[in-house]
Amino acid sequence: MTEKIAVLGAGSWGTVLANLLTENQLEVALWTHKPAQVPEINEQHTNQHYLPDFKLHEALHATADLAAAVKDATVILFVVPTNAIRSVATQVSALLDETQRPIIAHAAKGLELGTKLRVSQVLEAVLPAGRYQGPVVISGPSHAEDVATRDITTLTAAAADEAVAKKVQQLFMNDYFRLYTNTDVIGVEYGAALKNVIAIGAGALHGLGYGDNTKAALMTRGLAEITRLGVKMGANPMTFIGLSGVGDLIVTCTSVHSRNWRAGNALGQGQKLPEVLANMGMVVEGVSTAKVVHELAEQQQCEMPISNAIYQVLYQGAPIKTVITDLMAREGKAESDFGVTLQVVPNKV
Amino acid sequence: MTEKIAVLGAGSWGTVLANLLTENQLEVALWTHKPAQVPEINEQHTNQHYLPDFKLHEALHATADLAAAVKDATVILFVVPTNAIRSVATQVSALLDETQRPIIAHAAKGLELGTKLRVSQVLEAVLPAGRYQGPVVISGPSHAEDVATRDITTLTAAAADEAVAKKVQQLFMNDYFRLYTNTDVIGVEYGAALKNVIAIGAGALHGLGYGDNTKAALMTRGLAEITRLGVKMGANPMTFIGLSGVGDLIVTCTSVHSRNWRAGNALGQGQKLPEVLANMGMVVEGVSTAKVVHELAEQQQCEMPISNAIYQVLYQGAPIKTVITDLMAREGKAESDFGVTLQVVPNKV
Repeated sequence: MTEKIAVLGAGSWGTVLANLLTENQLEVALWTHKPAQVPEINEQHTNQHYLPDFKLHEALHATADLAAAVKDATVILFVVPTNAIRSVATQVSALLDETQRPIIAHAAKGLELGTKLRVSQVLEAVLPAGRYQGPVVISGPSHAEDVATRDITTLTAAAADEAVAKKVQQLFMNDYFRLYTNTDVIGVEYGAALKNVIAIGAGALHGLGYGDNTKAALMTRGLAEITRLGVKMGANPMTFIGLSGVGDLIVTCTSVHSRNWRAGNALGQGQKLPEVLANMGMVVEGVSTAKVVHELAEQQQCEMPISNAIYQVLYQGAPIKTVITDLMAREGKAESDFGVTLQVVPNKV
Repeated sequence: MTEKIAVLGAGSWGTVLANLLTENQLEVALWTHKPAQVPEINEQHTNQHYLPDFKLHEALHATADLAAAVKDATVILFVVPTNAIRSVATQVSALLDETQRPIIAHAAKGLELGTKLRVSQVLEAVLPAGRYQGPVVISGPSHAEDVATRDITTLTAAAADEAVAKKVQQLFMNDYFRLYTNTDVIGVEYGAALKNVIAIGAGALHGLGYGDNTKAALMTRGLAEITRLGVKMGANPMTFIGLSGVGDLIVTCTSVHSRNWRAGNALGQGQKLPEVLANMGMVVEGVSTAKVVHELAEQQQCEMPISNAIYQVLYQGAPIKTVITDLMAREGKAESDFGVTLQVVPNKV
């Protein structure tokens, strides 16, 4: 019997992942909260708003009926914006009985406003314990537009239970899509969320005309502070050297496909935030994440000068040029101040 | 009294660093083995072959006399290609007496052909113990062209003795150039050298028309194998998350200023290696480093699938498309397989 996968959310990433799973000969139900998308996907096999001019697999089936999507699914994959996770998970919660026990996975990249929770923490808070496996986090350097054109793409599938992560890995892998397992859910989620803030900064530097050295400096020192906070929250520092850390940071900070980068670029060129967001037409996760990171860094007394500078630009009207000058005027530092030391223990052969 | 710095090597990077130190109001002697460069730099204040159309500081002084350059210098900075380090250091060696004790620094990014030694190991093998301080390694994301135009740039100054690294840090820092100290010389040198091999791969993917996801995949999984080898050689794994690891990898793999990237791009577009190197007109460190890394990985029994694929393309005539297909056909893996277990130990406060 073919496995059935429910993909919740028909934005660009949800649609592309659902399409890929369909190509991998799985039965997929793509749930959308916009009923108008259903006939477009099922009859015209397109999703023009999110993936202009991309032809979807004819066997990909969309529905606006959440119960129908979730019924008999062995995997339920949430691909809705971070701040919609709680409400969709609450609806799913009511649909899970004692026998189905699907794997719950998500591909959201943010932290919940107000609670400051990671996405898997929100899922665990809402879903009934014992009625699901996971959660598994799918994350990594992956613009939907590039996956749609079968660009070679690598991701992480992270779960506390590696066997569950391996199950998800096997469903997705094909000749252009490659997943690596990871057991550090905390690190993978912080890497995915926090890099969006840095990407706004990278876009702003581009908009201001800075070059490659400066962008690399921002990304590297940005990664240092992501790691610093992540370690405080219980992450393994080595996770940030991986696909959900460095990998996703690179692609988000260097590609014009990134919404966060585009928002930053517009800010760098002198647009105001409300205008930027109005022009975007999609959720820019980094803008709300910047607020959560600011609160979290204060709470944890964690030094995050770059994220803080971006917060000041987004929420306190600070001029970008001023925050850059301030960053450069700081005294000279040592490079690896992560608050922890890694002791190397050779593996047994 | 103003300190005197000898910068050995008047390629693009040596010239830019010498120029920056002159701007920082230090006395600088820029040594070149090409006598024709001396009047050009001293009278026309240009170095057209390496830095077209860039105007040098009028106080920057070049010389072809190594003894004159080194005399009374408190810092001697080697900025010659990796495979020229031994011969220049041998000449410097004869000039060091018991009283001068200069700091020896270098900014070379490679591994010596044949011996497979890091650059600081070559310096230590050649220079007379007790007659110098250091060596200090200067490394990080820094295209010379961008420093010349005062793009904000960050680097690492690494030395076993942090006090010596701090001395170098202070000489260079200004409002567009920022150094961070590091004590992991091994990690900084492997990061700097090995990333050039990956950059050839990134260029090749670009030349073949691959997109952002694929380049990020190459860089991230490339970094994983750089870390794997580095740890085997005694590096601190966290160094690879820093400026000489991730930072330099990013800038080298994404900028058209990178020679290694440009060489890879030409290979991806179908040119043959001898033709590529003939067109370049400068040393492409990654080509010889690929050979050293291949030998080192075999010796250490270290799995480096990407570097090995690039070696096969460069030295064994393997078609690029074939090595990419082979890489994607490998079985699914866990993400953090560094050959060692890393225990996270909180720092003492």
